[in-house]
Parts: sequence; structure tokens; C-alpha cells
Amino acid sequence: MPPRRATAPRWSASERGATALIALDWGTSSLRAFRLDDDGAVLERRETDRGILSVRNGNFAAVLLEVAGDWLRHDREPLLASGMIGSRQGWIEAPYVACPASIDQIAASLVPLPADAGVRGWIVPGVNCRRAGGEPDVMRGEETQILGVLGELPADVRSLCLPGTHSKWASLSDGRITEFSTWMTGEVFAVLAQHSILARTIEGNVFDAAAFDAGVARGREPLLRELFALRARGLFAEVAPQAAHSFLSGLLIGTECAAAGTAVGRVALVGSRRLTGLYARALEKFGVDTIVLTEDAAARGLYNLATRARRNEQ
Amino acid sequence: MPPRRATAPRWSASERGATALIALDWGTSSLRAFRLDDDGAVLERRETDRGILSVRNGNFAAVLLEVAGDWLRHDREPLLASGMIGSRQGWIEAPYVACPASIDQIAASLVPLPADAGVRGWIVPGVNCRRAGGEPDVMRGEETQILGVLGELPADVRSLCLPGTHSKWASLSDGRITEFSTWMTGEVFAVLAQHSILARTIEGNVFDAAAFDAGVARGREPLLRELFALRARGLFAEVAPQAAHSFLSGLLIGTECAAAGTAVGRVALVGSRRLTGLYARALEKFGVDTIVLTEDAAARGLYNLATRARRNEQ
Repeated sequence: MPPRRATAPRWSASERGATALIALDWGTSSLRAFRLDDDGAVLERRETDRGILSVRNGNFAAVLLEVAGDWLRHDREPLLASGMIGSRQGWIEAPYVACPASIDQIAASLVPLPADAGVRGWIVPGVNCRRAGGEPDVMRGEETQILGVLGELPADVRSLCLPGTHSKWASLSDGRITEFSTWMTGEVFAVLAQHSILARTIEGNVFDAAAFDAGVARGREPLLRELFALRARGLFAEVAPQAAHSFLSGLLIGTECAAAGTAVGRVALVGSRRLTGLYARALEKFGVDTIVLTEDAAARGLYNLATRARRNEQ
Repeated sequence: MPPRRATAPRWSASERGATALIALDWGTSSLRAFRLDDDGAVLERRETDRGILSVRNGNFAAVLLEVAGDWLRHDREPLLASGMIGSRQGWIEAPYVACPASIDQIAASLVPLPADAGVRGWIVPGVNCRRAGGEPDVMRGEETQILGVLGELPADVRSLCLPGTHSKWASLSDGRITEFSTWMTGEVFAVLAQHSILARTIEGNVFDAAAFDAGVARGREPLLRELFALRARGLFAEVAPQAAHSFLSGLLIGTECAAAGTAVGRVALVGSRRLTGLYARALEKFGVDTIVLTEDAAARGLYNLATRARRNEQ
């Protein structure tokens, strides 16, 4: 807790360090829970593998109690959850808000938890769009992370990249998410490294910067060809088995960045320190400037949404 | 057997229908065996799943006897085998011939089977190249198929495509394989359809021409993005689960053809009727003319190599 709180408590209705919001980033494979104070500061955080795929028989309430039951003891702290928890496979489906989507529209579309949940909680809707090319796209959770960093973006940054299993690239205008695209980079990496012939080329997963960069450098070439070329480089000992994991990572991230990162200006990277670092490194090779925002974007987005929803209610 | 043989036997040293060559197309997952007469006509053919991955403890001789032992009873018919049987994991390693590679160079580089094999046989070397971009590439088996169709190619065709798990695109000049590239299309299709989130979008594998064409039409777009777009189309019921297999197939084949099939003129497609048909359909969408050659290219290539090797010996 920051020292200023100890000397100048700002709480009126409740004790110092009181919970003002329980924020959940509840995805497919993980559940991250945050206890926030009235200013949005993170008082406590918990990271678990209780993603929605791990929840049996729709028993989300039980998992919530297991992970954050002690935070809920006063039964008055509101709870806000984003991510796949609002999908058809989640607790309750929260219909998508269509692009262009503003924080006001998203805040106005929160879906309350069922009455029998035993918690005063809401779920954040996902966002969908239809790109100029005609294809639909969807996000659940990333919209909340975007709302978490909106206030920190320099004025010239209108593009965000959220790397991950399914990376998102979003365009902003006037504080709205105007369009976005999803890239299956992380998942393609995982299935190829594990299930394709490239598994025989790869040994271990220690990061090798030179191999990563060599992979990135092939990012403008046709991916389906470059994948086999990595196999051939392995056969001719031009990429060591210990370097192949990083080469494949660089090739896939480079392929995404070369296509998605051009003509979008400076890009804000939002996500884990490790992944945003790799993307910043790849984008730099293609001459794209980045700023990296790694701190609790989901928790801050949930706080911003709760604040906005409360204000809208008044 | 063609009727002309019944009325006009052309055999001197041996009986009608005598075996002049046993030709093996021995790959990773299958072994196709052909009994050829002195003119290269296929007298008999056998298709098995005894690819080199199915052979335990290097016991290739036993598998050969199991599959074609009755053909070998005279112990004088020569045997020629191409494919992964000549790799490090095969019977005996046949070092690559470098591009530009001619039939004479390949015929001069046949590797005899070990003395204890009990068969008078040779293995065809693979071919390797280093492309203008600097990457190495390799083929084993496809060089033999190419040598099998060389004589049938119209003079204006200098590009071949051999679709498969790892598709090959080869350039020809003066009867030599000058350069080639490998595309991991078939394998990427298989691992994504089985192991990625797209498995949930796909139901069955009945061919749907409209869905295949719709996938091909996205072949110039970034693949990593289009893969997730298929998932999103599925979520919004814009691609039916029963059509998603064909859409994904079209997307991947279209991505390969859009990149590899441009600026190479008319393309000869060599391979199975099903795959060459799909590739011809995709290439047509990108304005590329094709001719399709599906008949026993490997057997014919092995025959051509044996003939050339015998002539060179004389």
C-alpha cells in the first residue's frame, strides 16, 4: 500500500484499504482476480488457472467463492468480470457491443449476474466488428484492457496491439474502438511446435535473441514456405535445435507484425512483459515505433467501467 | 494389360508380362510398389501403409519381402526405390544431388542397397537447392515424379506443382530442376483442423465447393488473421460447421497458390486426382493456367531413371 494512505486515509464510509470493487479478468484458461480500492489502486491480486474451461457444470459461483470468497465477506462490494466468462460457454452470455464502441456504450451494456449467484456482480460484454473486407471479428476481455489504457495513450497513438494466443490489433478514434482484427499467431505457434514435423526440429524453449531476429527477418515472406524452410535449416544445421523455438516464434510474430503493423503509426502494446517485449522487438525491425503498457490493464479497465456505470446511474 | 501385348509379345529373354523393374515409391507413411515391364508399362501395383515410419528396427528387407516378395522370386529383376527410404531414417542414406539437377546426374548418383539386403536394388537420391533468398530446401521422391512427367510437358510449361502434406513447386530449365520450394500447406491444414480452436468450428469433411472457393478467395490476405476470421464466421453462422473443413482447405491452398503460382506461367500439377483437382480450381481463381498429370508419375520416373542408368553403364 502506498505510504500516503497510511498518513492520510481518504476513506469515509469504510476502513483504510477497504474493497471498493472486485475485478475479474476471467478467460478461457485463467482467472485473475483483483481487489481494488475507491481510487482503482490494486490492494490485492490473485492469479489462478480456474479459467472457464476448468469450471464443471456451470458452477462459476463456487469457483468465485474458492478464489475470492474472503473478499466478498461484507456482501456489498460490487463485482465486475470481463473475458470469456461472458461467452455462451461462460456464466451468462453478454451480447457483443458493435464497433465503433465507446466506454459509455460498453458500460451501458453490462449484464447482471443471475439472482442466485449470491453476489452483486456484472459481466462486461464483448465487442464485435465487421471489417472493410467483410469478415466479422470478436473480442472478449481485450476491450476491457483497451479501456484500461485509453487514458495513458499519447495523443498520436491510435493503434493498439494486444499479443496473445489470439492477438488483437485495434484502431481507435475519438476514444472509440472503431475496428479490430484477431491473429491466431500464438495458437498456430503452439500447435506447430507441438504437433507438426517442426517438433523434431525444436529442442527446448530457451530464448535465443539472434534466432528470434532471424525468424522476424523472414516475416514478409510466405509463411507456409518459411515454415518448411525452418525444417530444412534444421536438417542442414543452419539453425540449431536449441534455437529453433525462438526462430519459429520470431517467424510467426514477424509475419503478424509485418502485415498488421504497417501504416498504422505508433503502436501501443498491451500485455505481459514477455510478449510485449517480443512484439516491440519485432515491430522495431519493421520500422514501427511502440510504447509498452504492461500494468494491470484489465483491472484498470474494469475500474474505469465501474466508475462510468456508477456515474451513468446517477 | 493392354491387348496388343496378348497378340504381339515383344519379350525375348523372358515370358510375356515379365518383370523388368520393381519400382518403389517409399515415403514416410506409405509404400507404393509397381511391377513394370520392359517398356515401363505398369503390370501390377500395390499400395500399402508400410511407410518408413512403420518399419521397426531398420527391417526394411522384411517389409519389402512382405509387400513384393512374390515379384522378387527370380532374383534378377532390378529394384529402384525413391522417397524417404533414402533419408537418414530410411534404409540407406542417399546424399542429395544439388540443383540444377538433371536426370543424368540423379541417375549417376543412385546408391546401391547394402549387400545383405538380398536384392539387387538402388535408392534414388533426393535433390536439394538454395533459393535466391538464401534458404535451403530439400525433396525426396518428388524429383522422381518430376522425372516421370518431363517427357509429357508442353514446351511452354516450366513450373510444376506437386501438392501434398509438403507441397513442392519446382522450376525447370533445359530438362533440369533449377530451383524449388516446399510449402507446409497440407500439414498445417491437418494440425489446425485437429488441434486448434478451429476444430470446434469444423464438422465432418464432405467437400463443399462454394466454401472451398470462398476460402480460396481469401488467399491473398494475411493467413494468421484469416484463420481466426473463419472461427468468427463460424460463431456468426456465416460458415456452416459442415462447410468449414472445405473453407479451411480453400484458405490454405489459396494462400499457397496466390503466393507460389504467380508469375510462373502455365503450371503442371502432378499428384492424386483429388489434390490436383483442388489446386487447379484454386489456381484458376488467380488466373493461372494448369495442366494436370496424375498417372503414376513416380513409377514412370523410376523407369526413366533405370533406363538412363543402364544406358550410362553401357
